[in-house]
Amino acid sequence: MGIIVQKFGGTSVGSIERIQLVAEKVAKTVKDGHQCVVIVSAMGDSTDELVAMAQKISHYPSPREMDVLLSTGEQVTTALLTMALQAKGLAARSLTGWQAGIKTNAVHGKALVENVETTHIRESLEQGEIVVVAGFQGISEEGEITTLGRGGSDTSAVVLAAALSADRCEIYTDVTGVFTTDPRLVEKARKLKEISYEEMLELARLGAGVLHPRSVECAMVYGIPLIVCSSFVDEPGTWVKEVNQMETTLQVRGIAHDLDVACIKVYGLKKNKGSLPRLFEVLAEAHVNVDMIVQSEQGESLQDLVFSVVEGDSKQAVEVLEAAKQELGFTEVQCEIGQAKVSAVGVGMMKQPGVAAKMFKTLSDAEIHIKLVSTSEIKISCVVERVQAIKAVQLLHTAFELDVAKEQAVVKS
Amino acid sequence: MGIIVQKFGGTSVGSIERIQLVAEKVAKTVKDGHQCVVIVSAMGDSTDELVAMAQKISHYPSPREMDVLLSTGEQVTTALLTMALQAKGLAARSLTGWQAGIKTNAVHGKALVENVETTHIRESLEQGEIVVVAGFQGISEEGEITTLGRGGSDTSAVVLAAALSADRCEIYTDVTGVFTTDPRLVEKARKLKEISYEEMLELARLGAGVLHPRSVECAMVYGIPLIVCSSFVDEPGTWVKEVNQMETTLQVRGIAHDLDVACIKVYGLKKNKGSLPRLFEVLAEAHVNVDMIVQSEQGESLQDLVFSVVEGDSKQAVEVLEAAKQELGFTEVQCEIGQAKVSAVGVGMMKQPGVAAKMFKTLSDAEIHIKLVSTSEIKISCVVERVQAIKAVQLLHTAFELDVAKEQAVVKS
Repeated sequence: MGIIVQKFGGTSVGSIERIQLVAEKVAKTVKDGHQCVVIVSAMGDSTDELVAMAQKISHYPSPREMDVLLSTGEQVTTALLTMALQAKGLAARSLTGWQAGIKTNAVHGKALVENVETTHIRESLEQGEIVVVAGFQGISEEGEITTLGRGGSDTSAVVLAAALSADRCEIYTDVTGVFTTDPRLVEKARKLKEISYEEMLELARLGAGVLHPRSVECAMVYGIPLIVCSSFVDEPGTWVKEVNQMETTLQVRGIAHDLDVACIKVYGLKKNKGSLPRLFEVLAEAHVNVDMIVQSEQGESLQDLVFSVVEGDSKQAVEVLEAAKQELGFTEVQCEIGQAKVSAVGVGMMKQPGVAAKMFKTLSDAEIHIKLVSTSEIKISCVVERVQAIKAVQLLHTAFELDVAKEQAVVKS
Repeated sequence: MGIIVQKFGGTSVGSIERIQLVAEKVAKTVKDGHQCVVIVSAMGDSTDELVAMAQKISHYPSPREMDVLLSTGEQVTTALLTMALQAKGLAARSLTGWQAGIKTNAVHGKALVENVETTHIRESLEQGEIVVVAGFQGISEEGEITTLGRGGSDTSAVVLAAALSADRCEIYTDVTGVFTTDPRLVEKARKLKEISYEEMLELARLGAGVLHPRSVECAMVYGIPLIVCSSFVDEPGTWVKEVNQMETTLQVRGIAHDLDVACIKVYGLKKNKGSLPRLFEVLAEAHVNVDMIVQSEQGESLQDLVFSVVEGDSKQAVEVLEAAKQELGFTEVQCEIGQAKVSAVGVGMMKQPGVAAKMFKTLSDAEIHIKLVSTSEIKISCVVERVQAIKAVQLLHTAFELDVAKEQAVVKS
């Protein structure tokens, strides 16, 4: 039998008792004859506690030192889970990010995995050990401890699954799977049996929150089947895998929302060759991630620009643009906080006309003003006022007939 | 100016506020023109909390995993102290044991430092940075995280001071220096201005507790002057350095005690060539440290043996001896727990007759039964019942005229 990678998030390892439950789950997988690599997050709120300590010392703690600080949380969990497995008579070994060979670039706080040197893990597996790896962390070429940022443990799990050619990657979390929309907001939200990587990627990017987009992207590229399921409830989860799109009849698979959005408006940007790319270069250098972009012309020589960012980045975005105002040559920059993004996602969408029209009509009938629109082959996103976002999600869930089960997707075997 | 190594123990970094006080102390040293390497312990009780979590999972957690678990405590402190220094506008960088190049053997839980590769630290110092190193930890040749056992952070500090040819090593702790005896037990205990390595070594070994014997030994071998002083009270500490012994007139410099002692008695051990060394080999293989040893003959072919161990090791000592009973050939092994060791220490001792006589008489007059005696050139130790130990310390402190100041030692410059 092959290798299975299992990832347990912070809630799943939030107490000694829960760590012991996780050990039981892992023991069962081993008993079924699999080789097991387990990726764990920090226990419950321990990361928040470390952040709070750092904040007491400095409002802007150095990203390098934050990584040194935060990486201890996952390390603690690996040792405790390994002890729990050993207490069950199983051979097990913990590995930190650097011991597991997770090589990243040097961007502290949001490092990207560049390579995984699996020698150490493979040796351990060959000795019949369960390998317990600290998620969320790696090591840079310079030997610095790095962390992968939000959702980093999911990414750790998927890159390890890819590097080890694992049969599958199981993501254990505090929900039972991926839903048509947020079940806390829409009573009629339904759990999906399966979803394609592309759809999951859009849902993840759009704030569905179950999986980090980076991990989905990586799973898609390397063709690693993911299954999202609950650590606590014993019921089937949602498979994230390649779905035969020819057979997919559902227009819209899910409604996602992201409440952390701000819009930046740049007026009177000169239309010379370099101004537009240079503007986004300036933002990228300040590590501001731009999401949706709309550009419109103002006469022959000027253009206006609207783009969305996470609200936490908006202040810095405005600052770096103001600082580069002369170089870029625009007349004014404005920031509108308190926005949200609501999206309809589905691979069936591209073959079905009228999805955009239905979406716009549904929102317009409810007097929800659309401020920014962006579309891809498998999704349509609208920025609306944050206070109207939840209402928008509920209306769209009904409008796209997601309130009742209709799934007919056929999974490629 | 040269390099100064400063070590701050768990109490000294027990809260964010205290870490900020430590940052101030370090900042002052840097302002005085020194290059600074700071070694820190885990915050306050955090190690105990980690141990408690491990104990909930397993009564015998694997030493390897305990090291992975416990080493996180010091790592947290390094990051927080570095942030505090940076918040004061100082350049600083934290290093874990493995990043600092502290190479140890592979004995988890009580690893010995074999070598320090200072390249990383020196590079950082040359860039004008304060280097904050996690004490108590290192890395084995196989890339495993190791810890140095009790008092390990002192050892980290001294080995780094030696490897960096530091001018001195400052040990900040919760007492103001080294005393003639434990000031909590004897009201008239006095702080020493200075003490020789040899004396400090005996005091440390005998449970004076201020410094770990390994750190004193290492400081002696490399001639690193140590100063023990308080993190909280601004008063001169005690220098531990080479003292001109010709000028030392004081017979006994201090009275030490160790309340954690058990005696193991082995009866009827055969007197053949190999039995005695083999017995201690068996104990060493089980990592039981034997302290005092008394052997007596029983006729021509048998011998009795009494030795002392820390009480926590006594059960294992008896078990491994019982298991090897046939091989070793003895009739019985007994264990007496609840013992203590009381010692008089002083380099003047060897030139002054009658110290032993005075010690035995003092104890005997007070009806304190001596169970085991061991002497070296600079100390006499007696094992007595634990319940009588504190009385013994008080009586000896008075008998050796330590209640009043009399120090005349001259320090070599």
